Amino acid sequence: MPNLYVALIHHPVVDKNGALITSAITNLDLHDIARASRTYGVRAFYVITPLTDQQRLVQRLTEHWVTGAGAHYNPQRGAALALIRLTHDLGSTITQVARETGHRPLTVATSARPVADQIGFDQLRAQIQSDTPHLLLLGTAWGLAPVYLQQADLRLAPISGGTDYNHLSVRTAAAIILDRLLARDI
Amino acid sequence: MPNLYVALIHHPVVDKNGALITSAITNLDLHDIARASRTYGVRAFYVITPLTDQQRLVQRLTEHWVTGAGAHYNPQRGAALALIRLTHDLGSTITQVARETGHRPLTVATSARPVADQIGFDQLRAQIQSDTPHLLLLGTAWGLAPVYLQQADLRLAPISGGTDYNHLSVRTAAAIILDRLLARDI
Repeated sequence: MPNLYVALIHHPVVDKNGALITSAITNLDLHDIARASRTYGVRAFYVITPLTDQQRLVQRLTEHWVTGAGAHYNPQRGAALALIRLTHDLGSTITQVARETGHRPLTVATSARPVADQIGFDQLRAQIQSDTPHLLLLGTAWGLAPVYLQQADLRLAPISGGTDYNHLSVRTAAAIILDRLLARDI
Repeated sequence: MPNLYVALIHHPVVDKNGALITSAITNLDLHDIARASRTYGVRAFYVITPLTDQQRLVQRLTEHWVTGAGAHYNPQRGAALALIRLTHDLGSTITQVARETGHRPLTVATSARPVADQIGFDQLRAQIQSDTPHLLLLGTAWGLAPVYLQQADLRLAPISGGTDYNHLSVRTAAAIILDRLLARDI
């Protein structure tokens, strides 16, 4: 099983003008990224938000599908959403992964724009087969705050579709990244 | 530019028990698949539904983002949603592509399950660089009705994440398929 964890970050992220904001939880981000994480063998999917009302929303959602009425209606959804772990910041997330694995995870920031000193998909694909856990950081809204890109251990190259347009949703970008890093059949 | 068209089918599709149904339009399916289509250079994104109230919903959504208030708020969203074309069935969709390109498109059915006589991603990736247009058929709800898989010109292999779980949303499956068929940077 690959040594990969995923984190969806809601604070601080940037809005369309580059200002730092805290974004709201988007229901389908959680469903889609949990389903992709389960499909590709990700070890856990961290949903990071400092807002307690938003944390309660995530708890209600996961309880509904993992142990509540949704578990009977569609058990496969619960199997995916059971991967979700709720944390209030990146530091406590790193600590949790370190406790679980015995190694501090290497953080991998993602961005739709090229940044300096990037790691390519092939290289990261090889690297996550090692014993060192990796924690993939995904930004909501208009993307991760610059501090994540500056302080992360690694910066993953952006996805390019071969056009001048690059505006994928975080849900679909996450799925493409997991496919490139973890797919077995291509 | 690759010779690929995408169609999102709402009728007939199957529900979780395998019964044939007409599914409702899901707002984020249209946004996410339009954005991925624009990112990867898909020529047009057909949204197929026979229900006139659902067709009106798609028209209102695209008008808002392409020419309405949304076009000012986020012009990049309009650039993606402008790829959407509304049709009432697959036959009229094939006719439109044939008129536009001068060639009847080859239809490519998709499924989360293995079916007989499948084409692999590498082979289809090579084939869509030819002059023959290809029309990728995506099913909403629990997937395309069996008739599409039986009658399509080609059946694309399912995405496998290397686990026993394979329940991606149609939004994320579409993005992964487009990345595998059209990405330039891997």
